[in-house]
Formats: sequence, C-alpha cells, structure tokens
Amino acid sequence: MWRSCGAGVRAVVAHGLCRVPPTDLAVPNAGWSVAMREQFQHLLRRAADGSWRRIPSYRRGLDHLPEVLQMVVGPVTGPGPRLFLRNLDAEGAGFEYAIFLHASGHRTQCLCQLGPYLEGHHGFAHGGAIATLIDTTVGTCALAVAKTSVVTAKLSISYLAPMPVGAVVVADSCMERHEGRKIFLSCHVRDTKGDTLYAEATALFIQVEDTKPSLAACP
Amino acid sequence: MWRSCGAGVRAVVAHGLCRVPPTDLAVPNAGWSVAMREQFQHLLRRAADGSWRRIPSYRRGLDHLPEVLQMVVGPVTGPGPRLFLRNLDAEGAGFEYAIFLHASGHRTQCLCQLGPYLEGHHGFAHGGAIATLIDTTVGTCALAVAKTSVVTAKLSISYLAPMPVGAVVVADSCMERHEGRKIFLSCHVRDTKGDTLYAEATALFIQVEDTKPSLAACP
Repeated sequence: MWRSCGAGVRAVVAHGLCRVPPTDLAVPNAGWSVAMREQFQHLLRRAADGSWRRIPSYRRGLDHLPEVLQMVVGPVTGPGPRLFLRNLDAEGAGFEYAIFLHASGHRTQCLCQLGPYLEGHHGFAHGGAIATLIDTTVGTCALAVAKTSVVTAKLSISYLAPMPVGAVVVADSCMERHEGRKIFLSCHVRDTKGDTLYAEATALFIQVEDTKPSLAACP
Repeated sequence: MWRSCGAGVRAVVAHGLCRVPPTDLAVPNAGWSVAMREQFQHLLRRAADGSWRRIPSYRRGLDHLPEVLQMVVGPVTGPGPRLFLRNLDAEGAGFEYAIFLHASGHRTQCLCQLGPYLEGHHGFAHGGAIATLIDTTVGTCALAVAKTSVVTAKLSISYLAPMPVGAVVVADSCMERHEGRKIFLSCHVRDTKGDTLYAEATALFIQVEDTKPSLAACP
C-alpha cells in the first residue's frame, strides 16, 4: 500500500512502519568511469522514444517489490539482507549497473562496470561475477516475460575472453521461446563497441505461480 | 622471495616493501553458525590422516601467489583488488568458506555458509552466488590437477532446489577427465547431511601455460 507519509515523500506503510522509498542505484555515481557514463547516456537517449526503459535497482531484492513488503513479518528497516549485486557500499568497487528493458518485454540489456572487488585472476573478473551479471540480465528478461516470479533452473555459460576488472560491458539477453512455465533465453556479453565477445550463455527459467511480484511493481 | 622481516614474522619483500603474510580467512570467525563450525571440525578431523588438506584463503587472489607478488609493478599494500568471494569485511555477511583438497589432487570439497548479503529472491541465495561457489570449487580442483593456472571455459549449472540464505552447504567437485590442456569436472552442492541436492554442474577449465602459480604456493 503506497500512500503519502511525510512532506512530499511517497512511502509504504508496513506493519505500522512508515518507510521512505528506497534509493534507486541504477544511476551514475562517483564510482562510474567516463566510459560507463557515456554509454549510460547513450542508452538513455536511445530510450527517449519509448523503445526501451531503464529498470530501477535497489540495495535489497525486497525493495523491488513493495507489495510483498506488506506481507513480511518484522521490521523492514535497519540492517538485513542485501541483493548480491548491491551488497557493497563503496561506489565503483563492485557491480555498477543499469538494466534496460525493451518495449517488447522480451529483451534486456545490462550496462555494467565490473569493479576491482570482483576479481578472480589478478586483473580479471571472477567467473562467478560474470555468471552473476548474466543470471541477473536473463532473470530480468524472464521476469518481464512471465509477469510473475521466476527462478533460474539452468544456466550454461561459455567464457570466451578474459574480462578485465574495470571493464564496461553490455549483457544482452533475449527470450528465445516460452513453453508453458518454461522460459528459454540467450545472453551475450560484449564490450560497449561490440568488438569483444566476452561470454555467451543460455538459460532456462521457470515461472513460479505462488507469488505475484513483477516488474510492473517498478515505477 | 620469502625471508625474515621483523620479529618472528615471515614476510615477502617486493619492490622494497616489507609485507607481512596475508590473513588466512578459511578459519572460523564470529560470523560462522554453529552448524558451520561443527561441519568444519568434522572435516578437519577427517583430514587428520592426510587424506584431505585445508586450502588457505585470502582477501586478494594475488595473496595466494607470493611468487607473483614479486613481479607486480607498484606497491602491494593498501586498498586494491579483492577476491570476489572475500570482498566483504563483515563476518558472516557474504561467503564464509573453507576448501579441502583430497590427497589424490582430483577432488575438492568447499564447506560454505551463504550469508544474507548474497540474496536473490527474498530469503534465498542468488543464482549468481551459487554459480560463484561452484566456479571456485571446481576451479580449485582444476588448479590442483593442472598444477598451473587455469581459466573457466564453460560452466553449466542445474539449480534443483532453492538455497536459503544462512544455509551451510558442501560443494563437492571431482575431475572427470583430463585431455591435453582441457580439464572436465563435475560438482554437486548439498546440505551438510546430504539430504538436499541444491545444484549440480559440469565445467571445463583450460590450462594456461604462461604463468606458473599453483596450489603448491599455498603453505
């Protein structure tokens, strides 16, 4: 339940607590490189005609789903869980990213800068960090397709080139087919110029019917 | 080059800097649950006959490779890159883990507690966090097999059951075959009792010949 709860601030009332909306982190901060900022502006300009839209991103997964907050037992403020990709406070240290959803609802692009706290081999992003970027990009696409919760069932990744930490990349995901509760997707991760294909992947997501959160919950 | 560099402390001299050895983080801390501590002690007892050994783990990937530190340009102290799985300071918030290597050199087991900063869906570990655990476990096994650097080439994961944050699990990896520079591995992630199979995976790693670091560098 969203309602006014203070001087011009929209807030959600849950269990008697008045909570201000969470901070959207899918916007530039001091940790973004010039290349990251330029590509972000490019994607914003592309979105101006309505063909794409930027998806907000918050510190906690639960913050994406205000209607679920009302069902959560216990306070919703204070320390607690964090979304894996947003668990670092230092700007630029970890994942800095913004996801764009195509108007078709069947394609997502995640612009991402992989910081120095995501290292595997010295100077390069950890394979698990790349898997996390891919899982998030295809998962957001699957969520848009399903319009209800989805879970990762299978994820197959081919790592084709080492990705330096600090790199700015675009993970581009498409739905390939939708069979009942199964959503099959593909993903390619390239540098912003498209010259280097770092990784490609396929994924299977399963719709989960027992909860109703969806991207529609995002402003 | 390792040599004495202070009052009883072994340290590495690199570029004129005297550096104390890094802290091994693959040991109990205040963030470990009772279940995590008990299973760790169980695995230590099993290792007492020499059939397994615990692998140290450090904040930075580079700390695993003291011989490489000598070749690194610039200071080796101060803020800088961090290993993806060790990038959080708060004990118990992220990955808490210890990897054990079988005497055969062809099998690893990673005992891991997945903290609340690794969340995907509310209350459950992110698919990328599980992928990261698996990549690290199979990668350590591949490194032991290759006795030289390895890189992830392919990783295919089936997610079979949702993994609650706070869960203590064991990722168990084996080398399946070794063909030239290719190392094929499997991995299963279960709860400590073996009742729940959370995920299973296959992986292909490639030996990289141009660097020489290996687990032999670990004490």
